[in-house]
Amino acid sequence: MPKKEFENDSKTLEQLKHLGKKIKNQLDDPEEDDLTFDTQVRSRSNVEYDEKEGRLALGDSYSTRKFLNISHARKFMQTLMVASKTKELIESGRTAAIREVYYQLKHSVPGLDENTFEDQDESNNVVVDIETATGAIREDLHLFAEKKGSLFGPVVINDSGDEIDCMNMGTSGLAIPSIVDHYEFVECEADFILLVETSAMVNRLVEEDFHEEHNAILISAGGQPSRGVRRLVNIMHDRLDLPVYVFTDGDPWGYYIYSVLKSGSMSLAFQSDRLATPDAKLIGMTMEDIEEYGLEHVTEDLKGKPEGNGGPTKDYKRIHDVMDYEWMQNDQWQNQFQKMLDKGVRVEQQALAANSLEFVANTYLPEKIENKEFLN
Amino acid sequence: MPKKEFENDSKTLEQLKHLGKKIKNQLDDPEEDDLTFDTQVRSRSNVEYDEKEGRLALGDSYSTRKFLNISHARKFMQTLMVASKTKELIESGRTAAIREVYYQLKHSVPGLDENTFEDQDESNNVVVDIETATGAIREDLHLFAEKKGSLFGPVVINDSGDEIDCMNMGTSGLAIPSIVDHYEFVECEADFILLVETSAMVNRLVEEDFHEEHNAILISAGGQPSRGVRRLVNIMHDRLDLPVYVFTDGDPWGYYIYSVLKSGSMSLAFQSDRLATPDAKLIGMTMEDIEEYGLEHVTEDLKGKPEGNGGPTKDYKRIHDVMDYEWMQNDQWQNQFQKMLDKGVRVEQQALAANSLEFVANTYLPEKIENKEFLN
Repeated sequence: MPKKEFENDSKTLEQLKHLGKKIKNQLDDPEEDDLTFDTQVRSRSNVEYDEKEGRLALGDSYSTRKFLNISHARKFMQTLMVASKTKELIESGRTAAIREVYYQLKHSVPGLDENTFEDQDESNNVVVDIETATGAIREDLHLFAEKKGSLFGPVVINDSGDEIDCMNMGTSGLAIPSIVDHYEFVECEADFILLVETSAMVNRLVEEDFHEEHNAILISAGGQPSRGVRRLVNIMHDRLDLPVYVFTDGDPWGYYIYSVLKSGSMSLAFQSDRLATPDAKLIGMTMEDIEEYGLEHVTEDLKGKPEGNGGPTKDYKRIHDVMDYEWMQNDQWQNQFQKMLDKGVRVEQQALAANSLEFVANTYLPEKIENKEFLN
Repeated sequence: MPKKEFENDSKTLEQLKHLGKKIKNQLDDPEEDDLTFDTQVRSRSNVEYDEKEGRLALGDSYSTRKFLNISHARKFMQTLMVASKTKELIESGRTAAIREVYYQLKHSVPGLDENTFEDQDESNNVVVDIETATGAIREDLHLFAEKKGSLFGPVVINDSGDEIDCMNMGTSGLAIPSIVDHYEFVECEADFILLVETSAMVNRLVEEDFHEEHNAILISAGGQPSRGVRRLVNIMHDRLDLPVYVFTDGDPWGYYIYSVLKSGSMSLAFQSDRLATPDAKLIGMTMEDIEEYGLEHVTEDLKGKPEGNGGPTKDYKRIHDVMDYEWMQNDQWQNQFQKMLDKGVRVEQQALAANSLEFVANTYLPEKIENKEFLN
């Protein structure tokens, strides 16, 4: 495998070196009585919706961590160990799982009855510290997570020197890795990207040749899309200038999947510019589809109790949570949630099979695309 | 997509037709006062270990279901509906998710205030009834589940007319579908199959070029292997005559993954001949590896309480459960579990990173293979 070189490598290395120098200067300075680290606060209280950009971002709260006191000495040592290890990863052109980093750095401290790390929570927290202190993110530091999702469609991807024709993947598809920053798009004949909530629905569309007949790139999220899937949609939209349609269940969970893909998530608000795709549109399922496509007999009742009637609980609570988000305040979204509450039902994308197995590929999606019927 | 034709299609269609005819004969026979269905009991009480074959199988218990009484009429209708739908799937060369089948068949019954199916549990149970009554399994009936796992290595697979070179898949890999019976192996240069518990470990091996240097087919299970992954290992072993090595964590969960891949699972004992690979061997992690490779400082303490000391609970309980299985009774397995209990520790495959990132690819696995150090 050739060295993995990412676009941000030199920038990330500079940031890691800068961090090291700053610490060294503080140590060398006789006036300095502590080592400090300024970090942007990442809790929900500091997450803001940037309406102009259409995505979540961190606000202006900063906190300062100090290291030169005994209770912080352990954390300080750990921070330098992880920073040094990620620098080594970037320089050697390798990637590693955060679990491997933990095991690589776990050892006993000579002369002490103490380990460098006791469990992976410690090293994971330090990874977040370094992300915050350098402005680099996990993938920039060459650290990956579990993979999830698959891809089909008229695009040729160069992944680490191998050219993969994603139209030629049968019913199997390309497994989407956790890090996709090194992907190069060698050729692309696609007209749009369709991100789909379930892999079973992608299987249906592949079997009906939807990707071939409509020049579509199909990506299955397998539920909430992973960082790899979100990053992939972001860079494909950006580099290939393709519209992005999101196809989920008509329920608060499906709409939240759409919202995360489009605007980012609260826990990763500091990465929205690389993970979110504000131009994405929802192609369905909508509450109007239920009547439009005769799905009344295949809706499911919402679980839990409605507000004022012992609730809201379960599905009802989730609807209220999501409809209260600042970035869900436009009329069309409020309208969807209100209809869901009024009807007391949800509808799954696979309910379209009630009409026929090929209905979703031959009628539902083509009609929506032809009529530009999207929620934004 | 060309029609999906499976090896068993004509046999499965015969079985479905036979089922239909049997029911019709019973209905036509004035002497017959009920419709019956003989099914092999699938509960654990009827699961046996076939020592000669090295896999789990169902025993001789049968039960008879009767349909012509009012409480069973609904189930009877549902059974015929699902049987008819799967016949249609096979004839049209399509596959479907069991959720799609549910939605395809859910409708109100004319003249009655009743639906054919109220929830998917009803149709799922009927699918199992039909599997049992016909001897065909879910995949024979063209029904699929969610996909999981990925594959890399020197093999060219023809999937529905597309030829996929799995050595040319970068860091991404081939996504393994739920149904793989239609795979044709066009070319294969591999010397063995390595089934790996975590996708992160496969990522490591791919990055270190292990599959290229050792002519290995790498398959990531992503935890407990899916039916698709188990079937794929079974047919690759069978058709390509390749040894199968299983690489898991050194803990009761990892050893259970090995046991399911090798001998089958209790809930799918009736399918062991197609899902289990009795020739599979465990390459590691073993309890001996801890000393052999200097991993003492990266083991994890077992969770819970040992027997006689308020336990066994958690990990300790799981160890006792798995070591009590009939197919785990040979000395080497009892020895592994006993050592685990004595040391009170478990060890993860990624702990090998403590030596170096490339250690697993350059030292650990090659040494085990070279020395034929496997557990059987």
